[in-house]
Amino acid sequence: MTAYTATVTVRLKRGVLDPEAETTKRALDRLGFELDALRSTDRYEIDLDAADADDAAERAGEMAERLLANPTIHDYDVEVEQAE
Amino acid sequence: MTAYTATVTVRLKRGVLDPEAETTKRALDRLGFELDALRSTDRYEIDLDAADADDAAERAGEMAERLLANPTIHDYDVEVEQAE
Repeated sequence: MTAYTATVTVRLKRGVLDPEAETTKRALDRLGFELDALRSTDRYEIDLDAADADDAAERAGEMAERLLANPTIHDYDVEVEQAE
Repeated sequence: MTAYTATVTVRLKRGVLDPEAETTKRALDRLGFELDALRSTDRYEIDLDAADADDAAERAGEMAERLLANPTIHDYDVEVEQAE
């Protein structure tokens, strides 16, 4: 078994309203910053032991499906790196 | 002016308690997943026009300092990519 860090990025699907990001963007506008758009995403860095990188990615993907992402409104992707 | 996307990643400093991540980890444990640790970070993808990548990074860094991160408890980093 090897130690890996799987990073799961969860973002809203295109077209799903993101009031938190809208509010953040408006606050930045009000502070005088110029920006065209702002999107927010959640990232989970998961340390786990796995036989290989594919196994780690598969398990992190299952965690996303079961708990971290809501498939109705979220897309997610998984990246795996061997832990130092 | 060129269109850039600046990604600001905001994470809790080492040693700062993260009850949300703890709760998420326990929920995954309870679902039968085996993992050693879980950290959560917030990411903001900001579309902006800037003279060059350094200018885009500087402005995104200021947004982090002013609003997106709380310097008492957060570290942040900024990555800039030219928008497609």
